[in-house]
Amino acid sequence: MELWFTEKHTEHVKFSIQVDKQLYSGQSEFQRIDIFDSPEFGKFLTLDGYMMLTEKDEFIYHEMIVHVPMAVHPLAKRVLVIGGGDGGAVRELTRYLGIERIDLVEIDRQVVDVCRKYLPQTAGRLDDPRVSIHYEDGLKFVRAEENVYDLIIVDSTDPFGPGEGLFTKEFYGNCFKALKEDGLMVNQQESPFYPVDAIAMQRAHKRIVDSFPVSRVYQAHIPTYPSGHWLFGFASKKYHPTEDFDASAWMKLGLKTRYYNPKIHIGAFALPNYVKTLLEEVEPGR
Amino acid sequence: MELWFTEKHTEHVKFSIQVDKQLYSGQSEFQRIDIFDSPEFGKFLTLDGYMMLTEKDEFIYHEMIVHVPMAVHPLAKRVLVIGGGDGGAVRELTRYLGIERIDLVEIDRQVVDVCRKYLPQTAGRLDDPRVSIHYEDGLKFVRAEENVYDLIIVDSTDPFGPGEGLFTKEFYGNCFKALKEDGLMVNQQESPFYPVDAIAMQRAHKRIVDSFPVSRVYQAHIPTYPSGHWLFGFASKKYHPTEDFDASAWMKLGLKTRYYNPKIHIGAFALPNYVKTLLEEVEPGR
Amino acid sequence: MELWFTEKHTEHVKFSIQVDKQLYSGQSEFQRIDIFDSPEFGKFLTLDGYMMLTEKDEFIYHEMIVHVPMAVHPLAKRVLVIGGGDGGAVRELTRYLGIERIDLVEIDRQVVDVCRKYLPQTAGRLDDPRVSIHYEDGLKFVRAEENVYDLIIVDSTDPFGPGEGLFTKEFYGNCFKALKEDGLMVNQQESPFYPVDAIAMQRAHKRIVDSFPVSRVYQAHIPTYPSGHWLFGFASKKYHPTEDFDASAWMKLGLKTRYYNPKIHIGAFALPNYVKTLLEEVEPGR
Amino acid sequence: MELWFTEKHTEHVKFSIQVDKQLYSGQSEFQRIDIFDSPEFGKFLTLDGYMMLTEKDEFIYHEMIVHVPMAVHPLAKRVLVIGGGDGGAVRELTRYLGIERIDLVEIDRQVVDVCRKYLPQTAGRLDDPRVSIHYEDGLKFVRAEENVYDLIIVDSTDPFGPGEGLFTKEFYGNCFKALKEDGLMVNQQESPFYPVDAIAMQRAHKRIVDSFPVSRVYQAHIPTYPSGHWLFGFASKKYHPTEDFDASAWMKLGLKTRYYNPKIHIGAFALPNYVKTLLEEVEPGR
Repeated sequence: MELWFTEKHTEHVKFSIQVDKQLYSGQSEFQRIDIFDSPEFGKFLTLDGYMMLTEKDEFIYHEMIVHVPMAVHPLAKRVLVIGGGDGGAVRELTRYLGIERIDLVEIDRQVVDVCRKYLPQTAGRLDDPRVSIHYEDGLKFVRAEENVYDLIIVDSTDPFGPGEGLFTKEFYGNCFKALKEDGLMVNQQESPFYPVDAIAMQRAHKRIVDSFPVSRVYQAHIPTYPSGHWLFGFASKKYHPTEDFDASAWMKLGLKTRYYNPKIHIGAFALPNYVKTLLEEVEPGR
Repeated sequence: MELWFTEKHTEHVKFSIQVDKQLYSGQSEFQRIDIFDSPEFGKFLTLDGYMMLTEKDEFIYHEMIVHVPMAVHPLAKRVLVIGGGDGGAVRELTRYLGIERIDLVEIDRQVVDVCRKYLPQTAGRLDDPRVSIHYEDGLKFVRAEENVYDLIIVDSTDPFGPGEGLFTKEFYGNCFKALKEDGLMVNQQESPFYPVDAIAMQRAHKRIVDSFPVSRVYQAHIPTYPSGHWLFGFASKKYHPTEDFDASAWMKLGLKTRYYNPKIHIGAFALPNYVKTLLEEVEPGR
Repeated sequence: MELWFTEKHTEHVKFSIQVDKQLYSGQSEFQRIDIFDSPEFGKFLTLDGYMMLTEKDEFIYHEMIVHVPMAVHPLAKRVLVIGGGDGGAVRELTRYLGIERIDLVEIDRQVVDVCRKYLPQTAGRLDDPRVSIHYEDGLKFVRAEENVYDLIIVDSTDPFGPGEGLFTKEFYGNCFKALKEDGLMVNQQESPFYPVDAIAMQRAHKRIVDSFPVSRVYQAHIPTYPSGHWLFGFASKKYHPTEDFDASAWMKLGLKTRYYNPKIHIGAFALPNYVKTLLEEVEPGR
Repeated sequence: MELWFTEKHTEHVKFSIQVDKQLYSGQSEFQRIDIFDSPEFGKFLTLDGYMMLTEKDEFIYHEMIVHVPMAVHPLAKRVLVIGGGDGGAVRELTRYLGIERIDLVEIDRQVVDVCRKYLPQTAGRLDDPRVSIHYEDGLKFVRAEENVYDLIIVDSTDPFGPGEGLFTKEFYGNCFKALKEDGLMVNQQESPFYPVDAIAMQRAHKRIVDSFPVSRVYQAHIPTYPSGHWLFGFASKKYHPTEDFDASAWMKLGLKTRYYNPKIHIGAFALPNYVKTLLEEVEPGR
């Protein structure tokens, strides 16, 4: 069966995955949601035709968006995840016994329902008793919170459509306010390679730099995202992502990971020169 | 014009680049050689339909295959490049004034001729007076050399077709013999992500581990190679890739790079757990 | 959503249809069955990844496989349809009030069930009281019949897989035997354009010529089949397809059609020279 | 080498041909011109990325656009071909010894030059002494002529870009004027199947009906054109396309053809009902 899902990484670059079956297709209030099964990547989720995650490589994204901040913050107890209705970030968070409460704010209930049914690999820990799911706009949710969270994870879609508000200056300012005095925020921050993505990445970085005293960017190899070179933002009120990172403390937790490890933690912040240049272009005063 | 070059990264994954024009197509004694022009990646070279390099991202590959070993070996004077008829590795090497002689061994003269004509960006330094080009089989060339080189760069194609011999145990053993007592060898070593590539990577690693006392693997983000997560082997008689790396000495050289920098050097050797596991599977005794 | 169904018309030619949703996918005892919905062609059915019919152009195939023989045979009362589990040929047949009984022999019950559910446009007349469905191998079914049918319609898949037996000499011989003394057989007979299809078409023609005194080929424009130029075989014990065709009798029936009409009937038997040559190559003695 | 030329037949349908090599690519004053070599269709010509002809199936188009009118007009001596810089229509015309002069009006000299070099199969008879090539706008050329031609063949590209003027009412009116009192005009008239093409086809038909007393449409199976079902317009001052067709006279000429023959001539005017309906929609008064 020659059935192929194609994502245009740019107008001139296509990435195509052979599909065995389409397991689900629905239109929610916010977006089109599809689940496919594929011989190479297992099941995968798309929103409005954009790849969100595959069973084969989601571990990279979710480990890197969770363990990097958790290995820096020694005592994170209360965590907010915005977006991330697939449950992958929550799954990694629930492995930390020290976390007391996880608020998951996902605007689209249908995403959660679909992932519970078709992607237990990511959604399987959404029933952990520490997790509260809020079907709300993340932008509004965070506006109402102050000095509450140790860690905010912005696990958004791309900066257009439903995810657009999660890339605004107002949003980052509200996240700052919602964090405790030693709180951290991490966010998925697009790719540096293709120009359209790089511009979105720069814009997000500029806004975060303007909002937080500490702001760094780190990277991972995620084969199913455009260019395979994906960035995350690390913003902090107090802790430095590598200087305040206690590798041995994290190792003592005994968490088994498939991508993340303490050396990767340091290496992820070692950016190529061309990426550093892109970041510096929007860092006034540095 | 909807004209697309497609590379199957696996049987079930296609990466497609829109082509504006095919600038050259020829059949040499060894392989089919094509040069295309594309809106996203500029000109690119394929051999037997496999992507070799694009103008847009070749800097990543060539910087990483050259500057990593050159920043470890303090006094490399004589360098052998096997494969690499595009001239990109030679270009980076010629920037080191301490290098006295570069032997480039490329089996296919037509590759060099075509790259000189269509890809001056990579081939432009092949006329440096320190460079000698040998149109020979690299496997045979290196068999005849002993205790000659400070550095051997194995800039091969994939481990089938003309490049196959450059992945054999005999070849690595001859490289060992051709190196001086503190010599280094680096090689392109495929990707860890897709199973077929990972198996080739493991096989190469096993053979290098058997041949050299020091053998490590490092990585880079190369968007146009399968999965975007590409590996290099670092094999050495004496020097350790990170412990014997003198960052400040390299910085004093004042070389301007777009990907490589001393932090990337360290970070490139920080491998994800799943890659470490693949490597350890073929490292008996470790 | 960039989701495309592709059929390779040859190794070097692809025909791709954008899919909105996959409505059904199942594996029967005989083959994989899929139903897709598409913006251009509406719903379409594939078996083992090969296009069978689309809502948009199935009328051409089904009108041409039914009305051509029905307009030649003045008093057809008993009709056998072999294959055709989608019900499209039956639908056209049921419009003739003179037909008393239609036997539909479809090897794969699941095809019928799926078409009833998803393709009422073709399957909607399968419940006509004159229709009897037999879930059997057409080859075996016809072996047991003698001097029974006025018309046999061989509405098979391609000559490999489950449909293979319906292209054998034995099968055509049994059809001859199962027909009354003035009976007709029509069959779908592939395309003359691409070499692989043309060879299959010639092979079928040769076998039919060997089995029936009258054997002609006619054509239609079916855009979703390879090359768009599709052939049907017309085999007969007595009637000639154009000389015994009574246009005014057919017009009096008052059937409304979208493709077929009496001029098309004649025109369909006017074959291009290159097709005539292909046919004559396998017509010994002519 | 996975290199594919794709033509979008509609927004939702793609037809893709594997390319071995791009033999030529150039930008003329009017359009982009490309010649490709392909394993399935041999060499093919595209203008602005649209398929014009392939070596494998151009015979169908060129035979049908030439022999149909030539078999109707008993004594055509002077012929005008507008467009058709590939030379295929001229090639067929030169086979008629009764033709005394052929004016080929092609706006783009570069098309002729490229076809002479790369497509001798079609362009090989452009040097016939009866042929005069005029590198002019066909719309302007025909404006200046009156009562000159026995036959005008409008071998245009699609009704947008350089070919747009050849689908206007003014143009058809001028063709009428340029024809002798028993003159004929044939034109390529798009496809009836896909809605966008069908609308262009209807518009052209309406304008021709308004300009000529006799106006009919005929069809051919051309696999590399959208849907494979292609139409031609037959417009005439006096002769009827089938009633004034003298099959035996044409047969006596002894021309060897691969698609056209007298039965095809009649059959080509037998249109499917849905096509007749499309035509009648724009034929006021009928």
